[in-house]
Amino acid sequence: MKVIVDLCVVPLGVGVSVSQYVVACEKILKEAGLKTQLHAYGTNVEGEWDMVFAAIKKCHETVHAMGAPRISTMIKLGTRTDRDQTMDDKVQSVRTKLASA
Amino acid sequence: MKVIVDLCVVPLGVGVSVSQYVVACEKILKEAGLKTQLHAYGTNVEGEWDMVFAAIKKCHETVHAMGAPRISTMIKLGTRTDRDQTMDDKVQSVRTKLASA
Amino acid sequence: MKVIVDLCVVPLGVGVSVSQYVVACEKILKEAGLKTQLHAYGTNVEGEWDMVFAAIKKCHETVHAMGAPRISTMIKLGTRTDRDQTMDDKVQSVRTKLASA
Amino acid sequence: MKVIVDLCVVPLGVGVSVSQYVVACEKILKEAGLKTQLHAYGTNVEGEWDMVFAAIKKCHETVHAMGAPRISTMIKLGTRTDRDQTMDDKVQSVRTKLASA
Repeated sequence: MKVIVDLCVVPLGVGVSVSQYVVACEKILKEAGLKTQLHAYGTNVEGEWDMVFAAIKKCHETVHAMGAPRISTMIKLGTRTDRDQTMDDKVQSVRTKLASA
Repeated sequence: MKVIVDLCVVPLGVGVSVSQYVVACEKILKEAGLKTQLHAYGTNVEGEWDMVFAAIKKCHETVHAMGAPRISTMIKLGTRTDRDQTMDDKVQSVRTKLASA
Repeated sequence: MKVIVDLCVVPLGVGVSVSQYVVACEKILKEAGLKTQLHAYGTNVEGEWDMVFAAIKKCHETVHAMGAPRISTMIKLGTRTDRDQTMDDKVQSVRTKLASA
Repeated sequence: MKVIVDLCVVPLGVGVSVSQYVVACEKILKEAGLKTQLHAYGTNVEGEWDMVFAAIKKCHETVHAMGAPRISTMIKLGTRTDRDQTMDDKVQSVRTKLASA
């Protein structure tokens, strides 16, 4: 089952600067061979369910190992059985309609 | 790694009444032996990471099998290494402080 | 326009214990006359759109004033025009179906 | 108070193709003069609190007026008082650290 995820990992107890933890998660997602797209409030991830969630678990383990005692993560998660759809498809579908509006 | 999750599964393409899909997910979570607490905008779930996410995957598979061609799920997910904390602890901590305020 | 909201306010830069900030937000929501229901990963809120979002803004202002330099909040937000629905309706609809399953 | 928001509006009861509703929301956000960045699972929005939430309310009103009887929206919402930060700053901070890693 393919999923498109929006992932936002928020470490608590490590102050207000969290970009180093985001960087560590980006590396984990990339090394897992997942397609990713960083944005200003999270990262879009595309891949097979088990691979995506194995990577998210590794993000939590890694961010804890980096010193964060608590993590609060938000995930949006989409699956569909009617047709294949990539992250690029989703963005392009909106952009095309916006351009012709 | 223990997790406390807030899960909200939203099936698309099946009209506006979605409670039957929520019921199916509740059963899956219960049958998985997870501790759950239903609320008006989702369900709190407590358990081991792998068990919780295996159950969430089964929710998606089941809701698709029930006829929903598309699902958009929201997950909040908390882990901590500094101490054990249950769902009840979290609610009680706030209630105690509210009562003494 | 009536809304049912699930609100989770996460202060950053104040350590791992955040219940005092949750307590402050609970009080603000109550004082605004909104119907609320605390759960283990947030608070359900029911009311008129403008009242609900005025209260959420006041939560952010108050949590900053309490010393949190950064806040990351998650909101789930439902509106419907087909019929009236309360938070209790939503929970009851699922519970009734679970009981008869 | 300035906010950076991640907005994802999900109309229910209108089938599985929702891009026309996303397009309508994009136009509302642009016409409100807000800075936006579309991604595969929502839109980042940057602006003053009151302007941002007035626009989000208008999105709900408009999507209902287009025929959606029910809407389930997810919002991530960040404010900070320690320093100014734009959406571009957030992405750039991670990209710079990734590049030098």
